[in-house]
Amino acid sequence: MTLADLTEEQLLARITPRLPGGPGVLVGPGDDTAVLRCDAATIITTDAAVRGRDWRDDWSTPGDVGAKIVAQNLADVAAMGGRPLGLVVTLLADPATTVAWVEGFADGLGEAARTAGAAVLGGDLSSAPRGTLAVSVTALGTLDGQAPVLRSGACAGDQVAVAGTLGRSAAGLLLLERGRPELDEELVATHRRPQPPLAEGPRAGAAGAAGMLDISDGLLRDGARIASASGVALDLSREALAPYAARLAPAVGADDAWECVLGGGEEHSLLACFAGPVPAGWTVIGMVRTGAGVLLDGIPQAPRGWDHFRR
Amino acid sequence: MTLADLTEEQLLARITPRLPGGPGVLVGPGDDTAVLRCDAATIITTDAAVRGRDWRDDWSTPGDVGAKIVAQNLADVAAMGGRPLGLVVTLLADPATTVAWVEGFADGLGEAARTAGAAVLGGDLSSAPRGTLAVSVTALGTLDGQAPVLRSGACAGDQVAVAGTLGRSAAGLLLLERGRPELDEELVATHRRPQPPLAEGPRAGAAGAAGMLDISDGLLRDGARIASASGVALDLSREALAPYAARLAPAVGADDAWECVLGGGEEHSLLACFAGPVPAGWTVIGMVRTGAGVLLDGIPQAPRGWDHFRR
Repeated sequence: MTLADLTEEQLLARITPRLPGGPGVLVGPGDDTAVLRCDAATIITTDAAVRGRDWRDDWSTPGDVGAKIVAQNLADVAAMGGRPLGLVVTLLADPATTVAWVEGFADGLGEAARTAGAAVLGGDLSSAPRGTLAVSVTALGTLDGQAPVLRSGACAGDQVAVAGTLGRSAAGLLLLERGRPELDEELVATHRRPQPPLAEGPRAGAAGAAGMLDISDGLLRDGARIASASGVALDLSREALAPYAARLAPAVGADDAWECVLGGGEEHSLLACFAGPVPAGWTVIGMVRTGAGVLLDGIPQAPRGWDHFRR
Repeated sequence: MTLADLTEEQLLARITPRLPGGPGVLVGPGDDTAVLRCDAATIITTDAAVRGRDWRDDWSTPGDVGAKIVAQNLADVAAMGGRPLGLVVTLLADPATTVAWVEGFADGLGEAARTAGAAVLGGDLSSAPRGTLAVSVTALGTLDGQAPVLRSGACAGDQVAVAGTLGRSAAGLLLLERGRPELDEELVATHRRPQPPLAEGPRAGAAGAAGMLDISDGLLRDGARIASASGVALDLSREALAPYAARLAPAVGADDAWECVLGGGEEHSLLACFAGPVPAGWTVIGMVRTGAGVLLDGIPQAPRGWDHFRR
């Protein structure tokens, strides 16, 4: 059965029950808009994924796609020091898309949202040209009264720390590209369904983190964004990063392991700078210094990682 | 120059200055998320548009596409009785898309948002398969302390009223399809850039409106949604609708004029039911009765209008 076999109402009737509500939902799906109980300072972010660019149907189940688009968005909420409240979702689909794909997508999305405490508030379904399948989520969150943690707050002398894994998603993708996913299924699973350390965002904010973001395009590229916004240099330690590379090396080889750690995106771990003590759950990987860009043991690194329209 | 010729940062540097901010924007574009000053009850809605389905490049300028996607979203905010605060925008584009298209789109979007008092808070840029161009907006709004006006509040005995025009967008589209846009450029302009009566939404809410929505898929189809949600029938008056059809008839002919009034979507006028006096700016077009569905002078009408995956 494909989307062309159902009316919009029939399709919504199959999707909506798979999606979590919540106590903050004042008006849920089905009206012109949803209404959500929010704080005075409301976080908003949006992130899309496109088949053929962000996922391949032979490598990711529809549930993987749903879980991943939620993770991407909620990692941005966490990277401000926030907590997710709710989200809306857009599906742009060729009418030949199977209903089973959409149901699986809704299951993965709903499960990830439920786990994170985010209500699914509604969305939009649109038909798209032949072969096109794209999903987009917009997430809302709250700072629970804390100040937002911007990219611009890092100061020379701060410690640079990471919460979550590094390079696993990129290494998992490499294994899929090489046709060897069985070499390390945990890495492949991270590529399919990244598990950002969402609770570490507010915890870091409470601990006085400054210059925080989630690593979506690679450690060097995203680190350079903190450096640029803060007017500082991030000097990373090869020794501190070595365990992350060592975790990957048996599956992808030592050189690619380092490339994955430094340039691999889509993992959505958190990178932050701390003037004071670094909270549990965070690992120090370098220091903030005067200067510009990202260094590795003092040596400037060329930006690496994902750019959306160029490679 | 195409998107493939620029980095994401270079493209953003060309787009962001075209977009309005506002006093409620606590953190604007450029960080992991935006932060917006919101009320306890925050409205959220999302709506997408896809080239080839929602617009044709030979009929709509990029600025038209930007203005229209804002109008669609803000009409949903108005249809809850709300006022827009801000929006985020997603662009999924073939890298061969021209930079000029994206700049024109941002200009049209920015102008429509500025006029409505909505800040543009950020968004997402993603590359898409060859030939694909899609845009998506998520809008946030406030009820300013009023209760939301749902689709479900209509009661037998209420008057049914409309704010804004009827059928002009569909008639304008017909003229484009016939290659005769010069027959009535005002109709074509409504198709390209609908102007929903956004201020009438909160005004209707304050006047006690119940059973309100914006007409995005056609008067009969959207009217049936109010009827279904409220458990009533909407009995429309041919005499009250005749002036709307008469406006269109010289350009498209009398029969198609009625089809446009009853089935034409994308105009985003507001339809609401009132137990008490109907405010200025609203025109009574029928009565709410016991029963189900939409009637015309007491005669049941089959649903007509747009369905996203079937026609």
